[in-house]
Amino acid sequence: MKKMTGHIWRLIMVFALLVLLSGQMARAATDPAAALPSWNDSVARTQIIDFVKRTTQEGGADYIKPAERIAVFDNDGTLWSEQPVYFQLIFLMDRIKELAPQHPEWKNQQPFKGILENDMHAVAATGNEGIMAIEHAADVGLTTVEFREKVQHWLDTARHPRFKRPYTDLVYQPMLELLDYLRASGFKTFIVSGGGTDFMRVWTEKAYGIPPEQVIGSTDKVKFEISKGGVPRLVKQGVINFIDDGAEKPVAINRYIGRVPVLAFGNSDGDLPMLQYVAANSLPNLELYLHHDDAEREVAYDRKSAIGKLDKGLDEAAAKGWPVVSMKNDWKTVFPAGNAETKP
Amino acid sequence: MKKMTGHIWRLIMVFALLVLLSGQMARAATDPAAALPSWNDSVARTQIIDFVKRTTQEGGADYIKPAERIAVFDNDGTLWSEQPVYFQLIFLMDRIKELAPQHPEWKNQQPFKGILENDMHAVAATGNEGIMAIEHAADVGLTTVEFREKVQHWLDTARHPRFKRPYTDLVYQPMLELLDYLRASGFKTFIVSGGGTDFMRVWTEKAYGIPPEQVIGSTDKVKFEISKGGVPRLVKQGVINFIDDGAEKPVAINRYIGRVPVLAFGNSDGDLPMLQYVAANSLPNLELYLHHDDAEREVAYDRKSAIGKLDKGLDEAAAKGWPVVSMKNDWKTVFPAGNAETKP
Repeated sequence: MKKMTGHIWRLIMVFALLVLLSGQMARAATDPAAALPSWNDSVARTQIIDFVKRTTQEGGADYIKPAERIAVFDNDGTLWSEQPVYFQLIFLMDRIKELAPQHPEWKNQQPFKGILENDMHAVAATGNEGIMAIEHAADVGLTTVEFREKVQHWLDTARHPRFKRPYTDLVYQPMLELLDYLRASGFKTFIVSGGGTDFMRVWTEKAYGIPPEQVIGSTDKVKFEISKGGVPRLVKQGVINFIDDGAEKPVAINRYIGRVPVLAFGNSDGDLPMLQYVAANSLPNLELYLHHDDAEREVAYDRKSAIGKLDKGLDEAAAKGWPVVSMKNDWKTVFPAGNAETKP
Repeated sequence: MKKMTGHIWRLIMVFALLVLLSGQMARAATDPAAALPSWNDSVARTQIIDFVKRTTQEGGADYIKPAERIAVFDNDGTLWSEQPVYFQLIFLMDRIKELAPQHPEWKNQQPFKGILENDMHAVAATGNEGIMAIEHAADVGLTTVEFREKVQHWLDTARHPRFKRPYTDLVYQPMLELLDYLRASGFKTFIVSGGGTDFMRVWTEKAYGIPPEQVIGSTDKVKFEISKGGVPRLVKQGVINFIDDGAEKPVAINRYIGRVPVLAFGNSDGDLPMLQYVAANSLPNLELYLHHDDAEREVAYDRKSAIGKLDKGLDEAAAKGWPVVSMKNDWKTVFPAGNAETKP
């Protein structure tokens, strides 16, 4: 009997320990004091935590049902770096260099000539048509599986020109914490980016904990076909289908998600329509901009940048009272621990 | 001390009860014996239950990680009825009748004339161009919010010509059970349908428990604009953007989900590429067809039907050993309880 009682006590202790542990784990993720450790005590951090608290408190005036807790994030410049140019563009240019030996004509043909000679001005001068030619040359004829392998190989081997690290190391630690904090509070996190859907999905689940079905981006045309060997496959046609930027971001949100989100986070004028769309939600909502003002730890750019221009967005944020996150002042660290910032 | 011990015993009892209850609830949803109560003991039911058992058993050879447990379902004719014509087409025709007073010219203009005179042959004779003209007339200029209200109002008031009930009553009870069973087993259920995404999302969450972001269908072009009053909105342009049928279903799955599903369920040749795509998954997978062979409780049609033609699909199912569900023999009931079948 004594042995039996001892057994029951052990069970009670185990139960108590489990209850205690699970409570602490939940607290670490959702307790305001413990949340967002890489964020300084700033207006943005306070507003985020206040928003999550208000909208998840059952019975409160601002309570939002879990199903409606949709949070959308731009990717380039919001979740990871985008300088000196969008990393996907570097991937495409590396792909052109890899294919160049099979295309001797590219030596005299823009935008390929510019890529092979590292003459970015010449590439830029070809404009949209140039980008489309690069996209076509880089992707046409690849199956979606082959494309994924090419992206993965590039991620494994390519290094950022300044930081000398894999591109996926250049995600923002404070944003990883925000994604975790929102998910622990019952929010569903989506990417809504101008980047290619197929490009992003190769690495976004591992990097951000965002599954492929919650990654929305630009798409190209693909064709379903059955190979001579009888194997069904999707083949890239090298033609752009949809560019998920600017006024197309709300269109994509409606098309893919079908609800108006309650939180939107961007960093450029290309995100402004998305933030406006979310701000018009009849549910409580929060819009945020990340301001790249940290020349030492990352790059300082805004109103006049060719990449990630933030001009009208800054004005509208000021007019509407949207929090603007200062990378320099609001973030204790920029990149994940172990990837210490290097100076230029 | 005695009181204290009594208190602890009560706590233990409560814990035990909770553990017991949660176990029973899980069993009701996932226990093979209790699953799919409206299904007769058939090859299809056995294969479904066997598949779920194999793929969810940790450590088993066929185990599939929860993140990869993606199940895709056609809608028209798979989750709800599609006869005498796709219900969305009836919605569109009702919309034309509603708008007709503002368009006196329609009295002499096909396909509108045919709709107003209930002359379906004349409507059908206008083909794809006719459908596009109907779509344009019915949707152009509506905001996505206005469109949703129109669909909801129609669902509330329209009645099926034969069954004399709201269209949303004509979902299939055995399929509702299958959706529940899969979700209780950690599968994520998606609709991949030729129907309009915006049309379906109005009612699919309530009818099937499938949230808008897991409903993939045909889309039309919408435009983001800010009204004169300063309100952001999405306005329908009355132009088709993407038809999610046939070989475009795998394309849509890749575009929206970004993983190859492990279970696919359809009822027509338009679903065949989707089933082929899923069958090529390197993970364990299951493909199923619903065969409409029940003239008494629903409608019997297959190889020669204008709506939901199932011809090549039947041949391929036989060749590949895909289970073909007989509505007549495999289902104890067709529509949900309380909506007893009526005879024609």
